[in-house]
Amino acid sequence: MSNARNIIDVVTEFYRIPLAEQMGDAKHGIHTHFELVIVKIILESGNQGVGYTYTGGVGGRAICNLIEHDLRPFLLGKDASCIEKIWEEMNWKIHYVGRGGIASFAISAIDIALWDLRAKKAEEPLWRLLGGTSNNTKAYAGAIDLNFPMEKLLKNIQGYLDSGFRAVKIKLGQERLEEDIERVAAVRALIGSDIVFMVDANMKWSIATAIKAAWMLKEFDIFWLEEPTIPDDYDGYHRIAKEGGVAIAAGENFHTIYEFQNMITRGNIDFPQPDASNIGGITGWLKVAHLAHVHNLPVCTHGMQELHVSLMSAMPHASYLEVHSFPIDRYTTRPLVLENGKAVAPDTPGIGVEFRRDLLQEYKTEFLTDKIAVNR
Amino acid sequence: MSNARNIIDVVTEFYRIPLAEQMGDAKHGIHTHFELVIVKIILESGNQGVGYTYTGGVGGRAICNLIEHDLRPFLLGKDASCIEKIWEEMNWKIHYVGRGGIASFAISAIDIALWDLRAKKAEEPLWRLLGGTSNNTKAYAGAIDLNFPMEKLLKNIQGYLDSGFRAVKIKLGQERLEEDIERVAAVRALIGSDIVFMVDANMKWSIATAIKAAWMLKEFDIFWLEEPTIPDDYDGYHRIAKEGGVAIAAGENFHTIYEFQNMITRGNIDFPQPDASNIGGITGWLKVAHLAHVHNLPVCTHGMQELHVSLMSAMPHASYLEVHSFPIDRYTTRPLVLENGKAVAPDTPGIGVEFRRDLLQEYKTEFLTDKIAVNR
Repeated sequence: MSNARNIIDVVTEFYRIPLAEQMGDAKHGIHTHFELVIVKIILESGNQGVGYTYTGGVGGRAICNLIEHDLRPFLLGKDASCIEKIWEEMNWKIHYVGRGGIASFAISAIDIALWDLRAKKAEEPLWRLLGGTSNNTKAYAGAIDLNFPMEKLLKNIQGYLDSGFRAVKIKLGQERLEEDIERVAAVRALIGSDIVFMVDANMKWSIATAIKAAWMLKEFDIFWLEEPTIPDDYDGYHRIAKEGGVAIAAGENFHTIYEFQNMITRGNIDFPQPDASNIGGITGWLKVAHLAHVHNLPVCTHGMQELHVSLMSAMPHASYLEVHSFPIDRYTTRPLVLENGKAVAPDTPGIGVEFRRDLLQEYKTEFLTDKIAVNR
Repeated sequence: MSNARNIIDVVTEFYRIPLAEQMGDAKHGIHTHFELVIVKIILESGNQGVGYTYTGGVGGRAICNLIEHDLRPFLLGKDASCIEKIWEEMNWKIHYVGRGGIASFAISAIDIALWDLRAKKAEEPLWRLLGGTSNNTKAYAGAIDLNFPMEKLLKNIQGYLDSGFRAVKIKLGQERLEEDIERVAAVRALIGSDIVFMVDANMKWSIATAIKAAWMLKEFDIFWLEEPTIPDDYDGYHRIAKEGGVAIAAGENFHTIYEFQNMITRGNIDFPQPDASNIGGITGWLKVAHLAHVHNLPVCTHGMQELHVSLMSAMPHASYLEVHSFPIDRYTTRPLVLENGKAVAPDTPGIGVEFRRDLLQEYKTEFLTDKIAVNR
């Protein structure tokens, strides 16, 4: 049945982009690349929406293949306006191999493209369409600096301050906890008492070490301690929150809305950090934002600041936007805008993220089989 | 450093195999194919191990790509004897896009190949190497028959009895609950009181419907009610187990060991059903089997009976092996052997599963890009 809103094609592109320098954290190790998966959805009307997801360098081809072989055939002919319906059906379509992981990244890229179509049709920027609380949001610079020697660590933080940031985060999880504390002390001495300061252990610690670390961190006025241990251990997070006495943040590794439900109600985290690139797109992110709201918690983010700036600006209960060290926004027409320490959302209709193919072209990577590429 | 135990190649093959007839369940819908991913690991010594995983028809190419692009480079040069180390490192290597989903299927296939190498080197069949409790295990026929009209449903069950099965399972989740109960009553009337009878709702129901169904099922002496609702809802499972008064089984959709930990301790399930093809291979399956043991619970399985027969036979606390309707074993040199209602484990060294390439050949499907295939 012909309908201007129907999806007539889904085109996936894959890019592997080298980082300017090697960046390390406690459990993911050294990052040398990030991967970018861009999905374009084309309607019978000719309207086009663009969504995307990213990884730390692993799994990108699997995401592309799941979209191309398993989700694209399902999407063709669907009414693109019915986003919640499509979201639910995509989740069930790939449920057995899904419930998080690669599937959540694939669904995210598609969902974001559908929201781009919706916002363009409404002729609204996302910050207004999704809530309209403001067109700007508090932001912090999230370093990936576990492997930086002290001098480079401090120089990097100074660079953030010089760029206008009023909040910064560093990585913890050195071989010796004492070394972590030395780095925290040095950064606090550099930034002074007015700058907001977060730390992130990237799942490195046992419960006992995390509680001990929390005690040692107290004197440095830490805004939050992020991912002290593995995301699966709800009871462990509960103990760290209760016995450590420092506010706890987590979320980049929860890739289903139910994991957030469990971690908020059982793990007692203070700062949920959903990432629209891995929690099921804007639809998934909004569900977590609303879950946080009804639990009297703020909402935060992880990664893809060029999109999250609009989501956070829209919300009445936004805490700090992460400005991540994977510079996706450098490959867009509008790198993140920072004014008075706050990130400003784009005012253009749609998601406000347009990729510069001229800059991306050299990193484009094939992922399809030759046979399938020919048959399209 | 040269070492006979080192991995020198990892070869992945992908097959899409049509089912003889369409088979349906409540939330996955109609199955027309299953997908088989076979992984061969080759050591410097020349020894070869074969592992595999399967899907219900979705996600196979993503699994192959994750193995080929993200896990193969990691595995090359590793000492294949150190399985626990490799398992842990694979999980962390793909953690950000992992923690279940596609990643668990990929890790499973590799882990099974490593166990094949270990058992062949030990010159032991898996049932003895993993525990040696017995060389056989109780088994039930698991129908995928939600879409079968009553007459076909009963004919199919009669076929299982004729084949020697002493335990059977049917699918529930019809439009009307009353219809489910009619089908249960008809099957119980057919099989008599001595045959063990399980039912499986494949996540279809709300908590309230599941509790109501449990009450209505009581008079038919149901051995277990499987997956009454979504696997994410630990509190919901707890309520169904407590208020329904029927034993609850679940596991095919838990793809991390931590999900089993949460579901056993919070959801109070009676029959954990890990599947070595999606819980991280034999290493992951054993962890769940031991978790069940220390919780005074039996262990069960889902799917791939030709491998699980050896795992279940090994265990002192095995309940019933599922003989699944995806007939992977038909494409092996030793289709499942049933004697006196029990499945008998193979006695050959290794995992005891050897694929017949002559039967599989016509279903072989490409998944690599042409460029990468050439560069290998």
